[in-house]
Formats: sequence, structure tokens, C-alpha cells
Amino acid sequence: MKITLTEHKKVKPDFTKLGFGKYFTDHMLVMYYHNGAWEEPEIVPYDAFAMDPCTNVLHYGQGIFEGLKAYKTPDGKITTFRPYENFNRMNRSAQRLCMPQLDVDLMVDCLKKLVEIEQDWIPTAPGTSLYIRPTMIANDKALGVHAAHDYIFFIILSPVGSYYANGLAPTKILVEDTYVRATPGGTGEAKCMGNYAASILAGEIANQKGYDQVLWLDGVERKYVEEVGSMNIVFVIDGVVVTPALVGSILPGITRKSTLEVLRKAGYKVEERRISIEEVIQAHKDGKLNEVFGTGTAAVISPVGVLNYKGVDYVINNNEMGEISRYAYDTITGIQYGRIKDEFGWIEKCN
Amino acid sequence: MKITLTEHKKVKPDFTKLGFGKYFTDHMLVMYYHNGAWEEPEIVPYDAFAMDPCTNVLHYGQGIFEGLKAYKTPDGKITTFRPYENFNRMNRSAQRLCMPQLDVDLMVDCLKKLVEIEQDWIPTAPGTSLYIRPTMIANDKALGVHAAHDYIFFIILSPVGSYYANGLAPTKILVEDTYVRATPGGTGEAKCMGNYAASILAGEIANQKGYDQVLWLDGVERKYVEEVGSMNIVFVIDGVVVTPALVGSILPGITRKSTLEVLRKAGYKVEERRISIEEVIQAHKDGKLNEVFGTGTAAVISPVGVLNYKGVDYVINNNEMGEISRYAYDTITGIQYGRIKDEFGWIEKCN
Repeated sequence: MKITLTEHKKVKPDFTKLGFGKYFTDHMLVMYYHNGAWEEPEIVPYDAFAMDPCTNVLHYGQGIFEGLKAYKTPDGKITTFRPYENFNRMNRSAQRLCMPQLDVDLMVDCLKKLVEIEQDWIPTAPGTSLYIRPTMIANDKALGVHAAHDYIFFIILSPVGSYYANGLAPTKILVEDTYVRATPGGTGEAKCMGNYAASILAGEIANQKGYDQVLWLDGVERKYVEEVGSMNIVFVIDGVVVTPALVGSILPGITRKSTLEVLRKAGYKVEERRISIEEVIQAHKDGKLNEVFGTGTAAVISPVGVLNYKGVDYVINNNEMGEISRYAYDTITGIQYGRIKDEFGWIEKCN
Repeated sequence: MKITLTEHKKVKPDFTKLGFGKYFTDHMLVMYYHNGAWEEPEIVPYDAFAMDPCTNVLHYGQGIFEGLKAYKTPDGKITTFRPYENFNRMNRSAQRLCMPQLDVDLMVDCLKKLVEIEQDWIPTAPGTSLYIRPTMIANDKALGVHAAHDYIFFIILSPVGSYYANGLAPTKILVEDTYVRATPGGTGEAKCMGNYAASILAGEIANQKGYDQVLWLDGVERKYVEEVGSMNIVFVIDGVVVTPALVGSILPGITRKSTLEVLRKAGYKVEERRISIEEVIQAHKDGKLNEVFGTGTAAVISPVGVLNYKGVDYVINNNEMGEISRYAYDTITGIQYGRIKDEFGWIEKCN
């Protein structure tokens, strides 16, 4: 790995006012795919790409990405959370989008080295971290619609605060029954750029109505709950933890997986299955919808305080974070920030 | 409109070996959206954009495009075909992707001016033309998933030959029953980048099996014929022209629309309706599937010689271009290249 350090470090932003994904560190990792193989990865000063307007990613959206975080623990260690999971998922996304496979071990090493170099950029206040964004984009300079021959892989880093402006306060979620995010046979389980563009309109309409996000239903029957775009969704119904099974149109979230493992280990009953929105609403009417929360790298565990379906607001757990949500949040962030012993082997040290 | 001409014109490629979308002209049109408004469009030397790696189009795929062509007529005029249709469709795509609207009249003027400046790049051999690619991409330098605040609109031009390497020779099409292109409520009727990325894998698999393209079925029932990704599809069944109705998951093609108008005017019976793949196969078995062809800007009219469904090759019209396909091709290209009088008002002169 070639490393070229910058001669002009940036002035760091106010770490108490970070927001999400607004500031980027001094360096990035870049690796080019050409003539059927990845070239040597390089850490270079963070800079713009010279991108020809005919570059096919700008026309046909052949691009995938990942998201994970680095943390500083109380004893000064720098850690990341399950990075192998991210690069394994990226390889599955690559397969769906006809893009080349990555060497997962090499990528984790690259990521650790980059994070170590940028360790002064890791914020330490509660809820803050260094967000890591590995990205792969098509880089052919031609307009035919087919898998590209050339690609750019890069990793950029951004010190972040809470994903939602109001932190752990419960969010308001609108159940979306007009627009569709994904269908079996489509790209819903890949972390590819097109899924996100397709979700923007429904999100904007929800925002205008006063909701934070939408909850997507399946694209075939518009009946089964899928996910929240930036998060997977988990329900606690009559004490049982229920989350939609990974049926092909849902992103297999790493925080989702970790949450289920944490809750199973703690003795909760966990079900991964199809769950209809009618079942959720009926559970609420019966007083059995104990908790609803989202899981995702950016938001970690995000309690849902209000679920709106067909014009009716259903208030969950008095609009407060529930016991199981709290336990999952405390355990996962505890492991991530080094406050709780990692019994799962999820933490990778960078230094 | 500001115009800055290049001081270093490119060496032009061999116009007998153009292929599709490989060469680009000396200039491009660029216009930036910032602070809630489009800035002045500019024609500038063709050059790369300096693109920050955090630019949101590279992560969330908020981008749309159009495709149309310019021609040189025998009397030396430079023309384009129905450009207002393209920019009106681009505005509909923009709406679906939460992107800003364009001033259609201004855009057509910009396009004409750019084509006029680049007129030496318009090839004149049969089947060749100057392909025009208007594109709009999100340009925020931040990673939140929402509609961008900043955008780049650009038009680039590429002298092109036939879209398919073998020109008007009938293509082999595989009916796709594993992967899905679009669903109602999704982005299938918008010309947005994500739709194309999602289609690549099925196309590559079809290519490996010896087919040129796939024919998509609807995403809900996997029963009704939709489109061919780069083309709309038209069947001639027992003398009647039948094409899938625009149900929300199909791109509303301008060549599709023009073809239907040309055939209706010529007295053919034309039906836009849902058509199941079973109906198509049954018509073939009954000897009533007279012709199948695709319509699209790049390919104009492209006869389908073989349709494969569930492992069986169905040969259409002895693998030859049919009478109606030929009539549509001759009429539309005749109007485009100025060999036939334009009774529809479709041609816009650039000089």
C-alpha cells in the first residue's frame, strides 16, 4: 500500500456540531480496477476525482457502497465494528451489480491503516464517531449499457454526530403505500446507489407531512413490512422481538444482525419472518405493540415513537424508548465504544 | 448563453468505425443549479468535472438523462428529432427523482446551438448520426440521503454508428423471468440511472447465453411483457400492432410513440394494452406472431429474430425483418434524415 501524506492539513470542524457526513478527513484510500485486476491501493490526500462527463457511473448508476464507524475507546484504542461483514456484503452487492470482487482481508487492513492515520479526526463525545464510507463506482469512458471494464474503489472518512438531528428521541415514521423501494428480483438487498435515489421522493413527501422516514412495504402485495431505507425495522409484539425476514428485497443490515444476536443471547424470543402491516396495526389496537425501533450503522438503534398508516398516527410506548430498544442500544454502543466487554468478537482494533 | 470555444480541437475518429458512445465532440453545455435556481448555461470545451468523492450522485444515484440524435439532411440542414419530447420527459423524470425542472424552450435552444457548433462531428453515412446526451446529476458535497440542493446539468455529443454491432440484422432476445427491472410505484417510467444499473446482470447473463438483450416482465405477476431496457417492444399479432400500455413501470419511449403514430397514420390497427408473455408464445404457436421489433432512440427500429422463453427459442418471421418493422424504420429514419417530408412536425432545424 502506497501512502502519500498531505502537506496541508485541514482545520478541523467544531466536534460538537458535526451533523452527518458534512466534513471529511485529510486523506482517502483509492484503488483502481483496470485490465481485469485491482491495482495497488493508495492512501492519498483527500481530493476531487477528474471525472469525464461520459463516465458511465454518471449515466447508468453502476455503484455500490458501505457504511461503518470507527470509535475511540476510553483506554485510547481505536476500533471498528465488524468490518469483515461490510466488505463481505460489498462483495455480494458487487455480484448483483456485475462489479469486481474485493479482497476482504486487504480491504480491512487498508481501512484500519487509513483510520489510524486519521485518528485525530475521531470525535469522542457520546453518540459521535468517525463514519467510514467505502464506495465502488464504474469508471468507463463510454456510453454503452453493460458492466464497466474499469472501476474506482475509494474509502472516505467523516466525523459524525447523531444521524437524526434529535438524537435518540423517538422518530415519526410514515408507512408508505404509494411508492415502492424494491421487489424480489430487483436490487433491494444490494447496497447500490439506485435504491437510494428511488427512495428520495417518498422521503421528501413524508418530511413535508412531518414524518422523519418512511416504512416500505413489499412491492408485490403492498402488505408486508420491509425496511426504512436507512434502517431495518424491529417490532416487539407481546414481548417477542419480530423483524422482517431477508426475503431478497431487504438490505441485510449488520446492525440488524448484531441486534438480533444481542437480544437472542439475552434470552429474548426473536423471530425473523414475514410480518404484515395489518398484524402490526392489530397488535397496536390490542395493546400488544410494545416497541418499534430501527437498526442501522448511522442511527444504531432508533426508537419509533409514531407509526402512521393510512392517515392514522399510532403512538408507540407513549413515544418513549422502550426497554428492549434501550438494552440493544446500550449493549451495541457499549461494545462499540469499549464500555462493555466484546463477547462476540465484533471489534477490530486499528492500533 | 456564454460560449467559450476550444483552442485545441480533437482529431476526429474514423467515421466508418464509430460504434456507440465512444467518441465525444470538442464542446459540451454545462449549467449549474445552486441556491434554488439554474445559473446561466455555458458552452465550454469538453472536459472532466472535478468531482469530490463525497458528491452525493456517486453514493445515492440521484441522476437522470435523455438520449436523442442530430442528423445532416441531403440539403445540408442539421436537424434533431422531437427534442421537446425529450426535455418534457426529462422534467417528468426530474419530478420522480426530486430534481429541479428545466426550461424546455431554453434547453432546446441550447441543444441546437451546441449541435450547430459541432456540426463537423455529424457523420452522414447511412445509420450514423450525432447522439445527444442531456444529463442531470446531484452535486451536493455531503452524505445525507435526501434530495440534493445543488445539481449539474450537461449535454455531451457523440458521433455514433449502429447501436447493435450487426446493425439491422434481427436480434436475439431472452425473456427474463428471474430478475426484475421495475414495479409500479418504483422508478421504471423515469429515465434515471438506477434503472440501468439494475438491468446489467440480467443483460450479461443473456449475453453469455448468446442473446443480445432481455425482455422484462412485470415485477408483480411476472406475466406481462414490459420492455427491453434500451428499447420498447412491439408485436404484430395477426396483422395487429400490439405494444404494452404505459402502466407506470415502462419507459415512455419517444421512438415508441412516433412509431405508433406512423403506423396508425398508415392505417394499421394499433393496440396499447397489457400483453402477457403467454399470449405472445401462443400467437407464435398458432402461426400468428408476424413480427416483433424494438423501438428506441439508439436502435431506432430493431427487428427481433429470436425470442427465448423458458429455454425454448421461438424464431420470428424466419429471422428476417418484417414488412411493418421495415415500413416503420423507413418512415422514421426517412423523416429524421430528411428523405421523407415531415408531415408530423417532428423535425427541429439547428441551422
